[in-house]
Amino acid sequence: MTERAGSTDAPAVDELTPPNRTLMGPGPSDVHPRVLRAMSTPLVGHLDPAFVEIMNEVQELLRYAFRTDNTWTIPVSGTGSAAMEAAIGNVVEPGETMLVPTNGYFGGRMASMARRAGGTVVEVDAPWGEPLETDAVAQAIADHDPDVFGFVHAETSTGVCQPNVPELSAVAHDHGALVVADAVTSLGGVELRVDEWNVDVAYAGPQKCLSCPPGASPLTLSDEAMEKVLAREEDPRSWYLDLSLLEGYWGDERAYHHTAPVTNVYALREALRLVATEGIENRWERHERLAGALKAGIEAMGLEMNASEEYWLPSLNAVRVPDGIDDGDVCRELLERYDLEIASGLGDLDGEIFRIGCMGHSARPENVVYVVTALGDVLDRMGAAVDPSAGVTAVRRTIQ
Amino acid sequence: MTERAGSTDAPAVDELTPPNRTLMGPGPSDVHPRVLRAMSTPLVGHLDPAFVEIMNEVQELLRYAFRTDNTWTIPVSGTGSAAMEAAIGNVVEPGETMLVPTNGYFGGRMASMARRAGGTVVEVDAPWGEPLETDAVAQAIADHDPDVFGFVHAETSTGVCQPNVPELSAVAHDHGALVVADAVTSLGGVELRVDEWNVDVAYAGPQKCLSCPPGASPLTLSDEAMEKVLAREEDPRSWYLDLSLLEGYWGDERAYHHTAPVTNVYALREALRLVATEGIENRWERHERLAGALKAGIEAMGLEMNASEEYWLPSLNAVRVPDGIDDGDVCRELLERYDLEIASGLGDLDGEIFRIGCMGHSARPENVVYVVTALGDVLDRMGAAVDPSAGVTAVRRTIQ
Repeated sequence: MTERAGSTDAPAVDELTPPNRTLMGPGPSDVHPRVLRAMSTPLVGHLDPAFVEIMNEVQELLRYAFRTDNTWTIPVSGTGSAAMEAAIGNVVEPGETMLVPTNGYFGGRMASMARRAGGTVVEVDAPWGEPLETDAVAQAIADHDPDVFGFVHAETSTGVCQPNVPELSAVAHDHGALVVADAVTSLGGVELRVDEWNVDVAYAGPQKCLSCPPGASPLTLSDEAMEKVLAREEDPRSWYLDLSLLEGYWGDERAYHHTAPVTNVYALREALRLVATEGIENRWERHERLAGALKAGIEAMGLEMNASEEYWLPSLNAVRVPDGIDDGDVCRELLERYDLEIASGLGDLDGEIFRIGCMGHSARPENVVYVVTALGDVLDRMGAAVDPSAGVTAVRRTIQ
Repeated sequence: MTERAGSTDAPAVDELTPPNRTLMGPGPSDVHPRVLRAMSTPLVGHLDPAFVEIMNEVQELLRYAFRTDNTWTIPVSGTGSAAMEAAIGNVVEPGETMLVPTNGYFGGRMASMARRAGGTVVEVDAPWGEPLETDAVAQAIADHDPDVFGFVHAETSTGVCQPNVPELSAVAHDHGALVVADAVTSLGGVELRVDEWNVDVAYAGPQKCLSCPPGASPLTLSDEAMEKVLAREEDPRSWYLDLSLLEGYWGDERAYHHTAPVTNVYALREALRLVATEGIENRWERHERLAGALKAGIEAMGLEMNASEEYWLPSLNAVRVPDGIDDGDVCRELLERYDLEIASGLGDLDGEIFRIGCMGHSARPENVVYVVTALGDVLDRMGAAVDPSAGVTAVRRTIQ
């Protein structure tokens, strides 16, 4: 101890009193009170037999939500992008080729991760705001013979839901490619059937349709995908996300790898219990119904959806910014006047769309009524050509 | 929606009711009630101006705890090993050489991470349970001319505190090597002065001496280290842990990279507020005093510490397993009879030591009295040559 008075430079930071937001952006969504309560549960150790039991339960609940029997179904110790990199960094080996889409922000992220894993990236083209066509994917696969094909099931940057997943899986498997699905914004909110659709690897974010705080993120791999991972010649480039090492912890051995985020696992367990109690199909139906009311309100007030009806993603509603309106101003005004979060566009759609989530515990009548009311009011005040009353009326008539 | 009755296969998982453990292992430690309460705070978005303010506060509090003015001081979105890989994966470039120690489990982990980053690993030898000698490090640096030198300040696998950090930094800097310190088990519990000791990069775990649930882990880099990261020719091999991308989020721009674990950041803020209120030097002194009582109790009952007095690590007390006793049986019995967690040895010390933590909110008189009492009782019942009463008496006489 070389001194004792050093604490005079301790920062003076007040009690934690964040504002009370309504979260209708691209995530995090509003967290259910039961999940918040689970997070204040005192911890047990990450190797405690009681925690091993909790791990088993979380795995079972995740399998239910993913609609899979995959043994290899775990929460990754990080946010959704960590689960994404765990997927790509383990199944893509140096020198292999991964086919990724160009139709949104997250295809670009897949490409970056695949390159860092030592892979070569090839692309299947589709414009932002459109899904991938089966024929285009089949052609790209025939042209490039990729080892891995990745696509985004629910594109948070465009509000597009990829509709033809079984067909995409089939063309990829015909050429021996593994199929990786980004289900960050679909798991628990939009129909997703990992086994029935023959998806090999899927990952998700907990803070979207599961309405769980971010920090432990769902990942599932088929036996075939996991066999590939375990047979790699070279170690994956991340130790933290190396699934062959994590196998020792989540598999039969229960050996120490790293300290699991115990509290986040508690929270995920509680969020997934809510899914199981509601029933996964009922939950998909609720998202469709509530987001349908949101969309009806948006369109009735005179705004336009970015994605066509056929590819509409209930959990993330991309709405065109009206002429003459600054999207950033609208988001700020909603935050300041209504304590309400929605988001601006990303990448190619920067400045062109609002992104309005309708996810998990945020997919409730009170939230939908509130966001349509508040958005109509703020746009009206800014002089946009909208009819706020028509919006609210449409929500009221659609929501039941 | 292709079916509606699928929820009949929903797993039936009961309410979360983990046992009420006293955590005196190598982490997680007992979490302060104020920190648990912070975790049940409703979320704001990760780009909310209110969250940006919270980020600033957490950075300021982390600087205080690390005793540094480093601009680049952040919580990494993962557990301690994620912060470790963020450190090593960013400062070690492909083709570079990293010098790591052999005197404990975590030097081996450093080596694995450095290799995966594309680096070449060289070693400075010291037996498990001994610190690194300055001369040995100087010789290894002269022999191998490493770009990066890593060492473990507080070795959780051996209970050894590295005493000569300023000297080690000096010999590394004399040869132009960056110095990386593993402070996972020291930050907030054992004297650590990043700036005064000229450490370039240090990382820690929140679930050790900060008594915060794992999930957001402290990392600090000097300007010089960060300049090296920003000047890399090749991207780091992890997108998730790429500090040049994280610079966009934690730096002035506040641009989206990934969704921060909002709740874990709330918790870390509260845990660090407790550090600031107590005063960092007072906190070091408390750990030394309480762990000193623990050690006095251990020794008085007839057990032997693994590390010599000179290198004793207050936050992690490695205790020799008495002859004829099975360490695993003792740990299980403590858990079952006393709801108390301590840990067995790792690696070279597997089966040879108990590891008894004395960290953060677990470094309290009630916990120390309890662990000495319970361990004495369990060993006595198993027929070990111990004097449990002498242990408790020594604690009582030492603890004030």
